[in-house]
Amino acid sequence: MGLPEVAPGDDLARLLVEAAKRQSLVLRQGDVFVVAQKIVSKAEGRIVRLDSIEPSERAERWAAEYHKDPRVIELVLREAASIVRMERGVIIAKTRHGFVCANAGVDISNAPAETALLLPENPDRSARMLQEQLARAFGVHVGVIISDTFGRPWREGLVNVALGVAGMAPLVDYRGQRDPHGKMLQATVIALADELAAASGLVMGKLDRVPAAVLHGVTISEGSGSGRDLIRPAEKDLFR
Amino acid sequence: MGLPEVAPGDDLARLLVEAAKRQSLVLRQGDVFVVAQKIVSKAEGRIVRLDSIEPSERAERWAAEYHKDPRVIELVLREAASIVRMERGVIIAKTRHGFVCANAGVDISNAPAETALLLPENPDRSARMLQEQLARAFGVHVGVIISDTFGRPWREGLVNVALGVAGMAPLVDYRGQRDPHGKMLQATVIALADELAAASGLVMGKLDRVPAAVLHGVTISEGSGSGRDLIRPAEKDLFR
Repeated sequence: MGLPEVAPGDDLARLLVEAAKRQSLVLRQGDVFVVAQKIVSKAEGRIVRLDSIEPSERAERWAAEYHKDPRVIELVLREAASIVRMERGVIIAKTRHGFVCANAGVDISNAPAETALLLPENPDRSARMLQEQLARAFGVHVGVIISDTFGRPWREGLVNVALGVAGMAPLVDYRGQRDPHGKMLQATVIALADELAAASGLVMGKLDRVPAAVLHGVTISEGSGSGRDLIRPAEKDLFR
Repeated sequence: MGLPEVAPGDDLARLLVEAAKRQSLVLRQGDVFVVAQKIVSKAEGRIVRLDSIEPSERAERWAAEYHKDPRVIELVLREAASIVRMERGVIIAKTRHGFVCANAGVDISNAPAETALLLPENPDRSARMLQEQLARAFGVHVGVIISDTFGRPWREGLVNVALGVAGMAPLVDYRGQRDPHGKMLQATVIALADELAAASGLVMGKLDRVPAAVLHGVTISEGSGSGRDLIRPAEKDLFR
């Protein structure tokens, strides 16, 4: 779904509705909108001018060692609730939301010159607001996912994942059900919202101006879950 | 794509071609077959009868502590090239292929009673063989992905990922290209094969007999890459 460049204060739901109409998309009950974090952040004004940032000594040292912009590193450190790894030029941090990701979600690509984009303050709230407006505009129930591309331990390459979720259950729990051999499934909870986000990554190119996608024909259950449900609690996590 | 139950020695390519014909699927240049690891393992006879396994003392101790089947734990330990985490009842291991995953890929769900499924010996080779046979049968170039559902650190739920890849480049490298703001992208390599695997997870349910999917309309490049390219080398990995 192509969109014009998004600016702070823009009504993102309206832009999405207009884009869908331009493309003659017919929305059906249970369709899912996946919206790139970068346009949500832009609409919500989560843009920081780098010349407003005074780097700390820690940011200066790290930036000098790894040839980074110290103002960006300072932003990363400020956005981090805790540092999970900080070595070899890579910063993996836990954000205040609880996401563990590179650079605490601070992004300088896809941002205007001399600025950086921060993650939305509350991606679930952003998703809920969009979900209500889109459902009203189209007259059908839709799911909404706010997505970002994250790296993963052990595997190369980025994949799109779900940060904020509204209008659908993000996890599908098969535990207690039986497989075709009659065996009880014990550990099978599928991250449906992450699979939907990844699928949308196939059409949301990094270079094209395609910051949103509509997925048809998916079975979502209108659960009350949120993107938070996809974050593993620290006490259950073996990799912090 | 529905399939009959797969047994050791079955010609999987033939079963997939027959299923596609039954469903009147027209294969187009660049379509991608995603095939669940479990049917590849079954066809390749990677099934172990649990009564043939003599658990070691280590497997017995762990199994007793966490109420597991010691024969399955023994298999997990045998399949593991190294243990990444072994605590709180969870075993995260690196397999001989280099995958880091729960239980070294040993699966007792979706396997006949009193048996366990191991990962294919060489998922890339399995993918290549299927790719050649399917391309010949349909007369068009297709990509093939052998997929499995893996958990992730930090995030709840499983997602489908690519173990073996043939007929397509598994990674798409945007580095050096410019975003819409004219900035050079520095860290953007997308795990296309994993996004395709995740997308197929949307139709390959855990309970339905849908162990394969065909994805239309995807832009793949006919690279010579393989699933190994998706494995981050240990020296670049911060989470071992």
